[in-house]
Amino acid sequence: MKKKITILPGDGIGKEVTACGKKVLEQIAECFGHEFVFDYGQIGHEAIEATGTPLPDETLAKLKKSDAILFGAVGHPKYDNDPTLPVRPEQGLLKMRKELGLYANLRPIKLFDELLAASSIKPEILKGADILFFRELTGDVYFGERGRKNDNKTAYDTMIYSTYEVERIAHKAFKAAQTRRKKVTSVDKANVLESSRLWRAVVQEVAKQYPDVTVEHMFVDAAAMKLIQNPKSFDVVVTGNLFGDILTDEASQIAGSMGMLASASVGDTVGLYEPIHGSAHDITGKGIANPLASILSAALLLDISFGLQEEADTVIKAVERTLKEGYRTRDIADPSTAHEKILGTEVMGNV
Amino acid sequence: MKKKITILPGDGIGKEVTACGKKVLEQIAECFGHEFVFDYGQIGHEAIEATGTPLPDETLAKLKKSDAILFGAVGHPKYDNDPTLPVRPEQGLLKMRKELGLYANLRPIKLFDELLAASSIKPEILKGADILFFRELTGDVYFGERGRKNDNKTAYDTMIYSTYEVERIAHKAFKAAQTRRKKVTSVDKANVLESSRLWRAVVQEVAKQYPDVTVEHMFVDAAAMKLIQNPKSFDVVVTGNLFGDILTDEASQIAGSMGMLASASVGDTVGLYEPIHGSAHDITGKGIANPLASILSAALLLDISFGLQEEADTVIKAVERTLKEGYRTRDIADPSTAHEKILGTEVMGNV
Ligand SMILES: CC(C)[C@H](C(=O)O)[C@@H](O)C(=O)O
Ligand SMILES: CC(C)[C@H](C(=O)O)[C@@H](O)C(=O)O
Repeated sequence: MKKKITILPGDGIGKEVTACGKKVLEQIAECFGHEFVFDYGQIGHEAIEATGTPLPDETLAKLKKSDAILFGAVGHPKYDNDPTLPVRPEQGLLKMRKELGLYANLRPIKLFDELLAASSIKPEILKGADILFFRELTGDVYFGERGRKNDNKTAYDTMIYSTYEVERIAHKAFKAAQTRRKKVTSVDKANVLESSRLWRAVVQEVAKQYPDVTVEHMFVDAAAMKLIQNPKSFDVVVTGNLFGDILTDEASQIAGSMGMLASASVGDTVGLYEPIHGSAHDITGKGIANPLASILSAALLLDISFGLQEEADTVIKAVERTLKEGYRTRDIADPSTAHEKILGTEVMGNV
Repeated sequence: MKKKITILPGDGIGKEVTACGKKVLEQIAECFGHEFVFDYGQIGHEAIEATGTPLPDETLAKLKKSDAILFGAVGHPKYDNDPTLPVRPEQGLLKMRKELGLYANLRPIKLFDELLAASSIKPEILKGADILFFRELTGDVYFGERGRKNDNKTAYDTMIYSTYEVERIAHKAFKAAQTRRKKVTSVDKANVLESSRLWRAVVQEVAKQYPDVTVEHMFVDAAAMKLIQNPKSFDVVVTGNLFGDILTDEASQIAGSMGMLASASVGDTVGLYEPIHGSAHDITGKGIANPLASILSAALLLDISFGLQEEADTVIKAVERTLKEGYRTRDIADPSTAHEKILGTEVMGNV
């Protein structure tokens, strides 16, 4: 199989971890006789520094011609500390999601048994938890109109959803549930928000086409609680862009660490694969970032964009074996056991 | 001391738990020689059934003449299942918060040592955690313009904040931090939202007036993760209405159960005290609801609205003693220990 993959390292630890993800893709190509052609693009703070814009046209053009994208992270403390800067790294990420029509962000949350001890949640609560999030990615308050008024003293954003946007992500969630434990939890805040009432009504309609799947509607506050209280009660979760952002970061604790979580963003054309963690400038360049989220993102890429299931499984097995042998990066180390081998990013990347 | 307290039982378990909260207030009045005059008001689903509106004028008039309010919960599955109903119980709650100017919702999260085992989070992560949330309560997407357009196929809500709204809640948070561990974490999503960028800039300004307090700004997704990963790293948290709703429900897991968490809503006039849990129709009338959140709300009422610290402490001590003696409602029982005495709502209410 011959494929074009664009690597977008982005900012902070994005560079270190995508280097590992890429290496894994190269090894897979070699072992299984595929030809993956790699190219690089700029995005985020790095792109702003080089070109003045967080998503240069050149990058976008490359992405549109790729068969898949492996992305790192964007962000920089400079912008976080100064909320008045008009050009920001995150705009590049949001524009990319929108321009490529990546409306469905899949975030699988599954704990490797070896990491039971790494989580702050009790092992008996976690064991067996296996959640697949579908976060809507090109709508909601991320893309509604925003601005200032009243002499700059009032700021607003618009949370907004249309029927077709909810329908397409709901169908994806129900279809996935059919191949799993046949339960969909739709999360909204329909007791307050009009956009959530539309969301809930549309999901109720779509559900009728999947009589074999149980559907449950939950308010976002209750879901935030239940995820920690009883993660095993969830199978597929479908929710909007903002609630999905919050809940999946929270759910990273179910998987032991944010450093373990991969995600796939898909829509109608090319797929994008990225860790759910951010650019983490506090640990950048120290060689301690966990590359497994990027490596597992590469596995999702092989599986979802190229249909290479055996190859994807090989990557996941390698990660499992590495963990079983006791290798850890610092974020997933259990302070109470001495036999673990704490590795840096690069060595961990050699799985 | 002579005071007028209005009880608003509301819906579902609201009735059962406020009955216990009221009983505690009566006992305190008797022991300490105060005169508390109680009155009742209707709100929520109950009020809709009786009067057609979720917050009748009569209730509102009573509340405005009270010295404090003890509230239960509102909500009913009927509305949750049918997102098209135009009159809803929650509108009563939101209108009450707005009309009474209750812009600051204080939610203290503290684990009673006896409940260490009841949480799904590991005891060593929890022990010593003590967080005070300031949730803004009369702004944000809860009160912005909302509606439908595009032939009913698009729905929107407006997230909106003005400088003065952020200033007044920020001042409350910083002042509280001065009496605690001197740290404020402000939670927003300033990397995406304009209202969050205003929020962050205002908090940065207010912070300058409290040089003895450390301020930290955190994105809501990161905060949702960190709360579980390392709850002890938080002291005072200040955030908007929607993020506060989600994060405090999540944080209930730090306190062992939602059934333990009390809240105070204050502003410029009368204070309102309520559990953070909802109406929980699934357990209504079974006598198994945990009344401690309402009882602890009564303690907050004594402390904050009446300045009766000794009386408030007496209530908290009684709750502690009850837990120490091994009494539990089902939600806070530890399945692994046999010596616990599982009680119903009413008996637990006799603390
Ligand atoms: C960087 C930020 C804009 C982004 C988001 O909020 O979507 C990130 O948190 C994510 O989850 O991918
Ligand atoms: C019932 C609902 C409208 C309410 C809210 O979202 O504020 C509740 O969840 C709360 O936290 O008091």
